Amino acid sequence: MPFKEKISLFEKRLAEELKSSVEFIEAIAEDLVSAGGKRLRPKLAFLAADLVGANNEVAVNVAVAVELLHSASLLHDDLIDDADTRRGREAAFRRYGNIVSVMSGDFMLAKVLGILAQTNNAKFTLLMSKTASQICEGEVLQFQAASLESYSFDIYYQIIEGKTAALFVAAIKGVGILANLEAEQQKALEDYAWAYGRAFQMRDDYLDLLGNAEVLGKPVGGDLKEGKATYAVLKLFERNIYEAKEIVKRHASKDNDINRMIELIREYKADDSARAQIDYEVKKAIKAVSIFPDSVAKSELIKLANNELKRIS
Amino acid sequence: MPFKEKISLFEKRLAEELKSSVEFIEAIAEDLVSAGGKRLRPKLAFLAADLVGANNEVAVNVAVAVELLHSASLLHDDLIDDADTRRGREAAFRRYGNIVSVMSGDFMLAKVLGILAQTNNAKFTLLMSKTASQICEGEVLQFQAASLESYSFDIYYQIIEGKTAALFVAAIKGVGILANLEAEQQKALEDYAWAYGRAFQMRDDYLDLLGNAEVLGKPVGGDLKEGKATYAVLKLFERNIYEAKEIVKRHASKDNDINRMIELIREYKADDSARAQIDYEVKKAIKAVSIFPDSVAKSELIKLANNELKRIS
Repeated sequence: MPFKEKISLFEKRLAEELKSSVEFIEAIAEDLVSAGGKRLRPKLAFLAADLVGANNEVAVNVAVAVELLHSASLLHDDLIDDADTRRGREAAFRRYGNIVSVMSGDFMLAKVLGILAQTNNAKFTLLMSKTASQICEGEVLQFQAASLESYSFDIYYQIIEGKTAALFVAAIKGVGILANLEAEQQKALEDYAWAYGRAFQMRDDYLDLLGNAEVLGKPVGGDLKEGKATYAVLKLFERNIYEAKEIVKRHASKDNDINRMIELIREYKADDSARAQIDYEVKKAIKAVSIFPDSVAKSELIKLANNELKRIS
Repeated sequence: MPFKEKISLFEKRLAEELKSSVEFIEAIAEDLVSAGGKRLRPKLAFLAADLVGANNEVAVNVAVAVELLHSASLLHDDLIDDADTRRGREAAFRRYGNIVSVMSGDFMLAKVLGILAQTNNAKFTLLMSKTASQICEGEVLQFQAASLESYSFDIYYQIIEGKTAALFVAAIKGVGILANLEAEQQKALEDYAWAYGRAFQMRDDYLDLLGNAEVLGKPVGGDLKEGKATYAVLKLFERNIYEAKEIVKRHASKDNDINRMIELIREYKADDSARAQIDYEVKKAIKAVSIFPDSVAKSELIKLANNELKRIS
């Protein structure tokens, strides 16, 4: 079955899951369905299924469960940024926005439970539990690190794993679990997903500061403005560059702060370090899937990982 | 085993579930554990287990899963009220409050999944999925009804069932499912829980408007101020009392609105109707458990239901 048809199976099932007798919930759900998006996590589930010969039903169940969890976390994350970005708008809007975000996110989580009841596999349920915990912990840790000004590579990895890699793992490992894959192949899939997920988020973080504002469609330095220290900045911390610490501490609030941070990063070649680390994760991801025989799905997974390098070189 | 020891099994397990490597999450979790509260839902799970001869492990699993879902919904509900009650405080506090509320609620939901993986029973997982959906739908429906000014007894029942009864059902029916109860007894438990849950919330709603402010510890009429029309008010709508509709429409914003609504309710004996309806639900609950042989647990369940009448007579 061509990929397009698979994705349309997914979209159909997603729409079914989101049906509700409550008008306002239906409206939000329709937004989610029609917005579409890249559907990267469903794509990973379908590629994993192709790679290991799992059927479409398995892939659709995993894809929908993971996409619902992803959407719920986006909705709940939006809300967190609400107070900042929507400050000044009238309370009624914020109030409506809050109900929309929290309750429709919760509704999606309820539907994840429904899929877990259907698949009825304790290992898959446990995987989704761990994934959901990691997402929350990553989110709170990111906030905590900025509040307590406690930064380290360990914390950074836990944040990006929670934010991105955990859901990639759920999409790929979930298929392996439901397809009863043997341990060695299962581990290979998982290794791929963690490494690719980390590379993906590290590239995002890299571009947020060192990318091109026009290509990004937003000004660079957004993370710094929120007190977030990502890989290249942590490399400066490692070298005890006092100025870099001060900029993060004041959330890049002075006029030239973002430009100065970029200068520091280039001066100490922290950008090279960040790219090298992404390269390392990409190579690890590709190596992990090398145990599988060649196939279209395998090439696609390799291509996805390699893309993370192209966008920053 | 005495009830006190059972509850301490529950508290111990709840604390274990809420462990996290992230300091801020631990802090919120500790609040939840130390706050305690009435633990009514766990109590229902233990009573149901006694009634049907299920073991403590079953009761603890259900009690912890249901209490976590309840706590998550309270945290997410607090947030919704945030904009109103905390308006004026600085954004940083609200922002921290938001992260705390949403993410720790989500973390609790993740732990519910963990328990579902452990109990590994598709029917129980499905029950929890439906319960979570009903909670969200009830919450959004309540908001929607106030926004669109669309009120009816059907909508009211869906709201109170989502708000309260659904979790009572989960606590009691969950035990029945995990104890493999036969269909007739299972239905009896479920009937009890729905009726008791409705009576419980209707009594809460009754007291919110017609109770004693000193006993309540807050001014009466809070629901009216949020545009919520509860049972006695709906009785006035049924009789097409224009003035009552206007008061709800303007969220009781005029000085004498709440007193006037109380007068109208007494004038048209809508308070008697509300009490009669609670009485009806309480009797239904008690009748449902009559099929079980007499026991301490059965008496306790009957006493709980009867309490809903005492507080309003």
